[in-house]
Amino acid sequence: MTSSSALLTDRYELTMLDAALRNGTAHRESMFEAFARRLPAGRRYGVVAGTGRLLEAIGRFRFTDAELDWLRAADVVHASTLDWLADYRFGGTIWGYREGEAYFPGSPLVIVNATFAEGVILETLILSILNSDSAVASAAARMVSVALGRPLAEMGSRRTNEYAAVATARAAYIAGFGATSNLEAGRTWGVPTMGTAAHSFTLLHDTEEDAFRAQVEALGAGTTLLVDTYDVEKGVETAVRVAGTGLGAVRIDSGDLPSVVASVRDQLDSLGAVNTKITVTSDLDEYLIGALSGSPVDAYGVGTSVATGSGSPTAGMVYKLVARRGDDHEWVSVAKSSVEKVSVGGRKTAVRRIDSTRTAREEIVYLGDGPDGEPEGAQDESRERPLQATLMRDGVADPAFLGAAGTKAAREHRAAVMQELPIEAFRLGAGEAAIPTVYR
Amino acid sequence: MTSSSALLTDRYELTMLDAALRNGTAHRESMFEAFARRLPAGRRYGVVAGTGRLLEAIGRFRFTDAELDWLRAADVVHASTLDWLADYRFGGTIWGYREGEAYFPGSPLVIVNATFAEGVILETLILSILNSDSAVASAAARMVSVALGRPLAEMGSRRTNEYAAVATARAAYIAGFGATSNLEAGRTWGVPTMGTAAHSFTLLHDTEEDAFRAQVEALGAGTTLLVDTYDVEKGVETAVRVAGTGLGAVRIDSGDLPSVVASVRDQLDSLGAVNTKITVTSDLDEYLIGALSGSPVDAYGVGTSVATGSGSPTAGMVYKLVARRGDDHEWVSVAKSSVEKVSVGGRKTAVRRIDSTRTAREEIVYLGDGPDGEPEGAQDESRERPLQATLMRDGVADPAFLGAAGTKAAREHRAAVMQELPIEAFRLGAGEAAIPTVYR
Repeated sequence: MTSSSALLTDRYELTMLDAALRNGTAHRESMFEAFARRLPAGRRYGVVAGTGRLLEAIGRFRFTDAELDWLRAADVVHASTLDWLADYRFGGTIWGYREGEAYFPGSPLVIVNATFAEGVILETLILSILNSDSAVASAAARMVSVALGRPLAEMGSRRTNEYAAVATARAAYIAGFGATSNLEAGRTWGVPTMGTAAHSFTLLHDTEEDAFRAQVEALGAGTTLLVDTYDVEKGVETAVRVAGTGLGAVRIDSGDLPSVVASVRDQLDSLGAVNTKITVTSDLDEYLIGALSGSPVDAYGVGTSVATGSGSPTAGMVYKLVARRGDDHEWVSVAKSSVEKVSVGGRKTAVRRIDSTRTAREEIVYLGDGPDGEPEGAQDESRERPLQATLMRDGVADPAFLGAAGTKAAREHRAAVMQELPIEAFRLGAGEAAIPTVYR
Repeated sequence: MTSSSALLTDRYELTMLDAALRNGTAHRESMFEAFARRLPAGRRYGVVAGTGRLLEAIGRFRFTDAELDWLRAADVVHASTLDWLADYRFGGTIWGYREGEAYFPGSPLVIVNATFAEGVILETLILSILNSDSAVASAAARMVSVALGRPLAEMGSRRTNEYAAVATARAAYIAGFGATSNLEAGRTWGVPTMGTAAHSFTLLHDTEEDAFRAQVEALGAGTTLLVDTYDVEKGVETAVRVAGTGLGAVRIDSGDLPSVVASVRDQLDSLGAVNTKITVTSDLDEYLIGALSGSPVDAYGVGTSVATGSGSPTAGMVYKLVARRGDDHEWVSVAKSSVEKVSVGGRKTAVRRIDSTRTAREEIVYLGDGPDGEPEGAQDESRERPLQATLMRDGVADPAFLGAAGTKAAREHRAAVMQELPIEAFRLGAGEAAIPTVYR
């Protein structure tokens, strides 16, 4: 696999570039905007994720000889366009919502200011990363809020593409999960990793006891033993006998969880293993996590539902040209006008109105250059929190958003933003966005 | 990004390895099996995809210094296990369904024969690739059958992770799509690429006519012009005026497609552009494609629904230890016995019974070493088609399954297999698997 991200691109971006270079319009300064027309079905808010990955991927968006040779052989664009691509380095400016920020329908999540040529060829890369990572984070955030402080681990790598799995682990971490099973996410993004054993480890051994002894020998009594390969009650008994009452945790991966968890807790307590925790992992999603809120569960492991966005595997964001300069160098707002896919043209500045109780009330999108003069509402103790940061200036990414540190910062930003959402945002049932989006 | 696939792995695989190396069970010869307990909701059949990618990824499953240094720093396993990983090369044998093959609940899709140590650490990689690629192929195959021979192009890259997008394009191609928008899929897997222009290209220009002229200048009159940026009727008129009646195609991306397509066809014909084709692309899925079967559409472009498995983004396959040798070197069939997740232990050999009308009737899974003696049913003119090929022997992949050639072969195999499925398999509505799975 090449390290260049340049061909992670829809062909039409290069054919548009090709045509626009020939008539000179490619060099018109432009504003592109990524936004979502609506939230995933019934959600009250979305969580922006992927921003840090995107900035790094733009840095690797280079047409090396390998890419150029293939484009030449496939006859995708003219030779003069290949020359232009050989020199391509994104030199524009990108403003956008911080990673971890909540978003709503119409929130101007990413604004790319560059020539048409420079901006148009990033369309697929921007949308792929934001749509997939934000879908995961938006689902994961609901699981975090319904878990009421109990830790969640992401373990859905096997349910999604092998590289998407790494991004999934990262997005779930930003949304408040505490750990992942995915080792590459640990290495690349600093996400804490976890995991001890599967059923195959028990089946490998002649007896469950042999397996537990081997695991405790290697990982210590503080490990988590998987107790449901054969019979849960016998499994728990064997686990405590082998590891002692200092056993870290037992994991349950099947059965009617509320009843199984209750009886396992009773059994552990009666065996004196009062500090041994119970982890459950069995096709959980936000609804099943909620249904376990009254059970003595200590931690959740979530796989399929978080990796697939719990019914909404993509966030549905689009990337549109919203303004460009004409031959007279004046800005022209542009928007598609056909039927159901109406967009709002022009450069947008977004703020979130926070009332005197520190609760978000409106997503305000200013058209044009943003709020003029005194911030509105200053007199009634509400304030307008600016939502857009400069992610990249003149082609240089702000390092605060990159790598493991940027990932951790996004996780912290998400936690702060969640504090500010109105309580309606955390209802699990389907409904409207928690706050309205207002254009001014 | 590293080219090693070794950390695309759940941590528990390495902790199991660690414990099993310490007590020697790691070296027990084992059989692991990947299979699906059920098809995605309501589907009649699934399509296996990802096999070729998997074989290549196993070849890149190497713990180089970069991986080992991180594992050491993160204290994942003991030093002796790191030494074992440093030398790791998968040396086992893998049998499995050919890529492009149809599958049903319980079909033994991949069987890995290796030591426990060698086989267990491939679990996540195998499942990530097969689950995601097969989900796409299974959805795409339904779109292909309902399109009744009209060509389909995959254009969902922006709706999934940027690397998953490449795999999506490949899986859809195997399932019968004719092309993709994704350039990397063209380069890596030989999938034909397509695409001309987006709405942004029209909006960049001062008029739609300017945009069309620029595109025809660069790409020729045989190009596809996108006619719905402003007003479809005016767009079609302008398109034919600019490109002439030799215009290749118009693309429509919005509106009530049956009515819009009918009026555009009439308009094109009345303008003399009788050979100009109509491509539609507007959140299509298998049901909307079916609803257009009576409309004069020439080609479909499908994005979100194919990239997200049309409601089933993961195939739900699992990877289980089904047999291993004991200390006496005898094979022992093993299976988890708890509650709802019962598995069938033992090595399995699968055939599909094809009747005298060349129609598939049963998925027969032989337990143990497979059918004995004379193939059953030889006297009634039915036959049993073996479903498992040797994908990798002693760590060496069969080159017939790799690269662009393997991808093309998988596409051809899928086409042949589809001919053999009973007609019930192609019903769009929810229902049971088209043929039963029988254990013998």
